[in-house]
Amino acid sequence: GMDEARPPASPAGLSAYVAVSQLLGLTLLATTGAWLGRYRGGVAWHSPLQFNVHPLCMVLGMVFLQGDALLVYRVFRHEAKRSTKVLHALLHGLALVFALVGIIAVFEFHRSKGIPDMYSLHSWCGMAAFVLYLLQVRAGEPPGAGRDPRAPRNTPVPPQWLLGCAFFLFPGASFSLRGRYKPQHVFFGIALFVLSIATSLLGITEMLLFNIRDSYSQFVPEGVLANTLGVLLVAFGLVVGYVLTRDDWKRPPLPEELALSMDFKTLTEGESPGGSS
Amino acid sequence: GMDEARPPASPAGLSAYVAVSQLLGLTLLATTGAWLGRYRGGVAWHSPLQFNVHPLCMVLGMVFLQGDALLVYRVFRHEAKRSTKVLHALLHGLALVFALVGIIAVFEFHRSKGIPDMYSLHSWCGMAAFVLYLLQVRAGEPPGAGRDPRAPRNTPVPPQWLLGCAFFLFPGASFSLRGRYKPQHVFFGIALFVLSIATSLLGITEMLLFNIRDSYSQFVPEGVLANTLGVLLVAFGLVVGYVLTRDDWKRPPLPEELALSMDFKTLTEGESPGGSS
Repeated sequence: GMDEARPPASPAGLSAYVAVSQLLGLTLLATTGAWLGRYRGGVAWHSPLQFNVHPLCMVLGMVFLQGDALLVYRVFRHEAKRSTKVLHALLHGLALVFALVGIIAVFEFHRSKGIPDMYSLHSWCGMAAFVLYLLQVRAGEPPGAGRDPRAPRNTPVPPQWLLGCAFFLFPGASFSLRGRYKPQHVFFGIALFVLSIATSLLGITEMLLFNIRDSYSQFVPEGVLANTLGVLLVAFGLVVGYVLTRDDWKRPPLPEELALSMDFKTLTEGESPGGSS
Repeated sequence: GMDEARPPASPAGLSAYVAVSQLLGLTLLATTGAWLGRYRGGVAWHSPLQFNVHPLCMVLGMVFLQGDALLVYRVFRHEAKRSTKVLHALLHGLALVFALVGIIAVFEFHRSKGIPDMYSLHSWCGMAAFVLYLLQVRAGEPPGAGRDPRAPRNTPVPPQWLLGCAFFLFPGASFSLRGRYKPQHVFFGIALFVLSIATSLLGITEMLLFNIRDSYSQFVPEGVLANTLGVLLVAFGLVVGYVLTRDDWKRPPLPEELALSMDFKTLTEGESPGGSS
């Protein structure tokens, strides 16, 4: 309930950085919309404007929503881990839906224009980011998630490394394996977010060189606006990355998790016992 | 001497990852050379080939050498911190020299061709990365570095935030300030390395769209080679980033540093005392 005694509030610095990240995120969405609306004729599906669905959906899904999905463990640091995991999964799922729509848009546009697919560095990086992201999110929601964690599993066996990632979030997985895979899951998540931003920058450069190749070097407003969008994307990545990696802003374990963690510590012995200094 | 008792060797996984990073680094340098040599006429200074100095120097300086400068604390984990810092500074200094030559090359090329400077997203990201890198490295070598740390300082006062970074590496700075700025220095260093790689990808895309715009979509060998260079750059960034951020591969403090660290802990009390689990 709302009136239960609550643990201390989040650190002041954390709240400020999260607020800045959200301001940057909304600004970069607005800037994408302004670019497409003012200089590229707007967004529509069954029309020559179908291409414009691509940048809008990718920035919304692969950058803004993916970034926010990573932030939930910092923002909701005193909520039960289970609820936070659900929000993390929902935001990633929503991000994937938008990304899929954006990818379909560009493939359909290419087909209608007779343009080959997957020849550019942007498409290579983007497809790698999307497929790896899909596998990473899929690993977070194995068959049977949400069931009683003690119930027996009789689901098909996924590939080796996917299984590895799945152990981390699946409630029934052994503590030892979950503890071993968590750092990889976190590193890989941040790396895919960064790769998504880099891919967006490549997309901006491609669009500008395809559309305003001759006037780009004269600092026309469209070029400056799109460059500014690129800078906003970098800034969003920097702020989100800082919030995610700052040690003293990591989510503190709740009392009930600490008890589990103690059990876990007693069970494992291969870990390095060194001090944290 | 060589026959002194030495602390335990580096973790096996770390050595393997570092070896892979160096293989990737050399491969991406070779790939850059192959692209410029085979498809772009080679590299020369006072000639129309002067532009080609730019990608070669930037990949060598801002990616390969910058990445290796970040790795030295993991590779030479059992050497005295002072020697490792010197190597860290030397590699960063060398990286900056190559980057400066690469930047001069493209500005001179633009001037000789009458092309405007600094209009593209690539140039905005690249100049930001270079200037911030210069400030970050400059902060690591303040006037008086290498003197007796206890000697009085009477050097001019640098700007506020530069001073902040300088405290970290300057031997005479207070332990409290150095401890507070180290995480920022590390985060900022990795962020600039990642931004440098993203900027390289933008440069590859620009070069391909300027030079082989019409044949790029037909999967011509030059396009595939340059895309492959982009993938190698991403892979180098991933491996270096993984080595740098993996917690149990962090450089363990030497006995004499631990003593200092204890003093530091006794002096500061604002830090969160929480367990590391």
